[in-house]
Amino acid sequence: MAFNNPNNILYLFDRVAEPLFLPKGEENKVVFKLPTEYLTPRYQSIVSEITDRWGGVQNRMEINVKPITLPDLSLPMTLDRRDNFSPFLPYHRQMASRLVETFLGMRTYEDFLSLSIYCRDRINPYMYTYALSIAMLHRQDTNKLPLPPLTEVFPDKYMDGAVFSRARQEANVVSSGNRLPIVIPLDYTASDLDPEHRVAYFREDIGINLLHWQWHLYYPFSDMMEIVKKDRRGELFYYFHQQIVARYNFERLSNNLARVKRLLNWREPVEEGYFPKLDNIVSSRVWPPRNSFTTLRDINRELDQIKFDIQDLERWRDRIYEAIHSGSVVNEKKQLVELTENEGIDILGNMIDASILSVNPNLYGDLHNLGHVMMGFCHDPDARHLETFGVIADPATALRDPLFYRWHAFIDGIFQEHKKVIPRYTLQQLSFDKVRVTGVEVLSEKSPKNEFSTFWQQNDIDLSRGLDFAPRGPVFVRFTHLQHAPFVTKIQVENGGPPRVGTVRIFMAPKYDERGLPMLLRGQRSLFIEIDKFPVQLKSGSNIIQRRSDESSVAIPFERTFRNLTGVRESQQVAEYTYCGCGWPQHMLIPKGHQEGLPAEFFVMVSDGSVDKVEQPPPVQGCHAAHSYCGLHKRLYPDRRSMGYPFDRVPRDGVNTLREFMTPNMAVIEVKIRHSETAVGPGPGNTPGVPANWRQL
Amino acid sequence: MAFNNPNNILYLFDRVAEPLFLPKGEENKVVFKLPTEYLTPRYQSIVSEITDRWGGVQNRMEINVKPITLPDLSLPMTLDRRDNFSPFLPYHRQMASRLVETFLGMRTYEDFLSLSIYCRDRINPYMYTYALSIAMLHRQDTNKLPLPPLTEVFPDKYMDGAVFSRARQEANVVSSGNRLPIVIPLDYTASDLDPEHRVAYFREDIGINLLHWQWHLYYPFSDMMEIVKKDRRGELFYYFHQQIVARYNFERLSNNLARVKRLLNWREPVEEGYFPKLDNIVSSRVWPPRNSFTTLRDINRELDQIKFDIQDLERWRDRIYEAIHSGSVVNEKKQLVELTENEGIDILGNMIDASILSVNPNLYGDLHNLGHVMMGFCHDPDARHLETFGVIADPATALRDPLFYRWHAFIDGIFQEHKKVIPRYTLQQLSFDKVRVTGVEVLSEKSPKNEFSTFWQQNDIDLSRGLDFAPRGPVFVRFTHLQHAPFVTKIQVENGGPPRVGTVRIFMAPKYDERGLPMLLRGQRSLFIEIDKFPVQLKSGSNIIQRRSDESSVAIPFERTFRNLTGVRESQQVAEYTYCGCGWPQHMLIPKGHQEGLPAEFFVMVSDGSVDKVEQPPPVQGCHAAHSYCGLHKRLYPDRRSMGYPFDRVPRDGVNTLREFMTPNMAVIEVKIRHSETAVGPGPGNTPGVPANWRQL
Repeated sequence: MAFNNPNNILYLFDRVAEPLFLPKGEENKVVFKLPTEYLTPRYQSIVSEITDRWGGVQNRMEINVKPITLPDLSLPMTLDRRDNFSPFLPYHRQMASRLVETFLGMRTYEDFLSLSIYCRDRINPYMYTYALSIAMLHRQDTNKLPLPPLTEVFPDKYMDGAVFSRARQEANVVSSGNRLPIVIPLDYTASDLDPEHRVAYFREDIGINLLHWQWHLYYPFSDMMEIVKKDRRGELFYYFHQQIVARYNFERLSNNLARVKRLLNWREPVEEGYFPKLDNIVSSRVWPPRNSFTTLRDINRELDQIKFDIQDLERWRDRIYEAIHSGSVVNEKKQLVELTENEGIDILGNMIDASILSVNPNLYGDLHNLGHVMMGFCHDPDARHLETFGVIADPATALRDPLFYRWHAFIDGIFQEHKKVIPRYTLQQLSFDKVRVTGVEVLSEKSPKNEFSTFWQQNDIDLSRGLDFAPRGPVFVRFTHLQHAPFVTKIQVENGGPPRVGTVRIFMAPKYDERGLPMLLRGQRSLFIEIDKFPVQLKSGSNIIQRRSDESSVAIPFERTFRNLTGVRESQQVAEYTYCGCGWPQHMLIPKGHQEGLPAEFFVMVSDGSVDKVEQPPPVQGCHAAHSYCGLHKRLYPDRRSMGYPFDRVPRDGVNTLREFMTPNMAVIEVKIRHSETAVGPGPGNTPGVPANWRQL
Repeated sequence: MAFNNPNNILYLFDRVAEPLFLPKGEENKVVFKLPTEYLTPRYQSIVSEITDRWGGVQNRMEINVKPITLPDLSLPMTLDRRDNFSPFLPYHRQMASRLVETFLGMRTYEDFLSLSIYCRDRINPYMYTYALSIAMLHRQDTNKLPLPPLTEVFPDKYMDGAVFSRARQEANVVSSGNRLPIVIPLDYTASDLDPEHRVAYFREDIGINLLHWQWHLYYPFSDMMEIVKKDRRGELFYYFHQQIVARYNFERLSNNLARVKRLLNWREPVEEGYFPKLDNIVSSRVWPPRNSFTTLRDINRELDQIKFDIQDLERWRDRIYEAIHSGSVVNEKKQLVELTENEGIDILGNMIDASILSVNPNLYGDLHNLGHVMMGFCHDPDARHLETFGVIADPATALRDPLFYRWHAFIDGIFQEHKKVIPRYTLQQLSFDKVRVTGVEVLSEKSPKNEFSTFWQQNDIDLSRGLDFAPRGPVFVRFTHLQHAPFVTKIQVENGGPPRVGTVRIFMAPKYDERGLPMLLRGQRSLFIEIDKFPVQLKSGSNIIQRRSDESSVAIPFERTFRNLTGVRESQQVAEYTYCGCGWPQHMLIPKGHQEGLPAEFFVMVSDGSVDKVEQPPPVQGCHAAHSYCGLHKRLYPDRRSMGYPFDRVPRDGVNTLREFMTPNMAVIEVKIRHSETAVGPGPGNTPGVPANWRQL
């Protein structure tokens, strides 16, 4: 096979703990023939054995690796192969950035591929996968290749560590055709004695965790301005995490838990314990748990080159609050930069995130990242026990931990403080002249009108790409996740003016608070989760808008979260398969309901498209991008309004309830989310579809 | 191969996570042909695939398994295959006891073997191995078979979990001859930032941990009186653990740590954290760590069928103290049973242990075991996090945890309280009429006289028996342990009387306490570690006694701790290989010294053999038993004196120092233990021998 085949680079994600000279791909079809100097020192000494042992496969495709003059890799190679890696750690970030830059600096695909091959068995596998993924996403010659989901590369970051020995047994003892899926129960990390466990299905959802990782690949920490400086990056950081917390709170209220408490006092023991039960296959260590009532401590870990005090975080927090309350930040040149109504949030997001876009890292520090690090190391703050960080300090696993949400509720509180000091939306900013929303309905097969149906579904993931040193062929794990029946939103709009473009904005929030009382808008507004947002062409007079849930601008289809890429990869269609895997997982679009039906408010607004519109080149054809939480790859965020509009600001004076907030171009209906505890089987065929005749309804 | 070959049962210890129908033994030479009903349900459905796949090995030895009518196994089968198991847990103990009884109840070896085969893939592997080992040790038809050391069956309980993926890689990628040992550094669980880590080499020593497991196989918790009721079991429980604590304290003083603090207050947070970094291969979970400053809590874990409060332990403790101070215990018939000078300690040991020999379990409870359980579950006392117990609650791993020693220092404190209230030894009880020890010397190759030399040594253990689903052939791990140069003790004894039998008792203790001051005997006596004890025939007049360190009654030879049994097993000599693997590991006989030489007091006593002697049949030929800490298999403890004599009691009135304690049949010399940080290579050939001409010295 030609060395520069675009697909070859995808084999590098196969079984990352197996050396690259071992056969790769389905049925061991592919063999990389490495120059001796590309082998690691351990294997250079037994090169003849390796050639004899792995060279003689029948019908194999050999890839003759072309060596190149190698760049300096000393910095990224300082991290041990068996260490853990997290971009939240400044030192790790620095090493990974260097590697990303080196990858991006390779002139041709061939050189890039050759360097990737050289690095594969030398660089820490987590860092390697992180950096290679970012490089592939940002290089012209690879950004159309389908990156394998991290669940396939490092399944150990996504599921009960106990499955791997069982999978190994199944693969070794039973031939491909007779293998049974290994079932992971929904309740493997805790029992309901832990109240927080009631929302574990959300925190531990594979799709949600994959998204968080994906998001951080799109918006990497790096020193390369060209890949960091993306349109409204800071604001998107705020909005993405605000929505995660809002969705988590929605699920909490549905499960009779109060909204998450902000993690404000870093001096008192943290009540929430978490035992992730994840293995760490590369290091054969596990993710350390956090006991209940653990006290956070100052961090001083020499090997990780990290030292900071809780006081540092407190100082940064207070300076950020001071900036918010004084309306401007101080940049590195000691100039005041105003936190304006629309752009202020972006400045704040970049400061808090904190990316290299921060206006003044010395003054405002690294609050968000080092908070993760502080929580991640609370069990071993000075590394005396040689422990690695907990799940909360790795973007691939952080969302599993209840503390993640307490931290982000705190972070969100800072952003909300800014939103409190900027002007409220005027009636004019909210309305759309002569446009009225006159009717809204939610329709779903087998459910009454305006009722969502949620239930459990089982699905299978093939572990074989991530299962080192086991016989080939698929080995499936079967896990259980939340699902909902697809639905159609039908909106009636009266346009009293000329034909115009509008933007439909759909949100939903719980109707009652933790006491069972109707909410005031001040509290409810931060619970509104975005369901969809799309432009519509409004003709004069009556308009009927129908929109399917699988078209949502928030979510990516179920199949894209759990897709098995093997088929795609080995066909010739790879180049046509545009990658757009970032988006809220479709199966988590609707929060879990109650058996008796959880009352919620379903809000629809049509805003003025001429105000919303962003001028940019036409989109790349290929797949439907879920831009609401992820933005658009290499393009501008396709909505000029502040993210979260119209709920991102405090309501105007005199408005206490959602009803009082309404303008004619808005509508709200009460919906119910009804949950059934039954679990349906794997595959989309097992869930109901949208109503068959939905276009006629 | 004949089904009833005595060696066949040993194959059951091979790769316990691999089903039994997979080939066993070196080069997959052995195949068990199982009746379909002996397969587990999962595999019964694909029996034809199994036969095709694993039946066709060339040159194999087939073992045709003879089915039997199966006894009721429902109780032991209630423990899930993937759960953790510990005989410290009453419910687990009950299940394991039933299994041991069932094994012991099988009439013939053939039936026993058949039942063991049926159970192997059905019963929890840890419980299975525990029960099968006890049954084999206690059955006439198997007690001469060489039980494989647990390090080979469950290497995950003894070494850094990180080695297994590396071992798997080595076994898969490199053929047998080219494999390199995987090196485990000495400092893998913590750094010296943790002061407790200075003695980790002792706590984590493979030999010491193996011994503790072995000891519990010899002295099992069981409901079968015939295998529990052994000579002076309770006293041995006390003495074995007293010596472990004494040895630990010796090592602590040598490492500038104070003696271990008794764990007295169970209400205050426990300062010592411990992160064992051990995998649990069977469950693919790890041994949960204990954070520093964890608070102990009442235990209520429904699944483990265990519920008790810290107050329960406090009540039992107080009742035991009350019994000691009143001089008698209350038995189940409400009778007073006196705690006599010699036998009281045995009653106390059985009460505290607590075995079925306890005089009154309702009154005195289960202090020692449930203490382990309380500490082992402190991270998840109500099982809300679905976590298993920490290392301290499993006899195979408990000694790794610093808390083990604090707990046993507390337990020992209770025994010492009893020793305080019984009469002191009189001069007459200590002396040996007309026998004087006139000289003692310690001689070691390459060291000055009266100087011990300690250093590090590397050694290899073959993992392949415990490495499931990897290619066959040895895979070694190389670990580093303490070692000392062999030495000869030369004792000059003047016998002013007729020829007589004496007992030589050799002890050693540190000379200075943690402040660097000479010790008073009250404190020093509990630091004396037993080095050797043996009978001598004294002729009238001058006697020279020479004794090599490898003859010690305390220790078993190095090779026996780390032996690879494969060679033995597959030869025909198995029947002649008498099993006697219980004993302090020879390489840990002498505590680690200082670079400048740690001063210690080396004590030799010759006591009156006619008083010491125990009448019993002559010993079984075969191997040298290390009876001091382990007793003798199916025989009486071969020393009539209280264990620890002459240091087990408070010194007589007026005696403050060791010198004042001396009678003429005793001698003490000051010795130095000099430590070198160099590590010598594997194998006994790399350490110095005893002085070549030692018989002439």
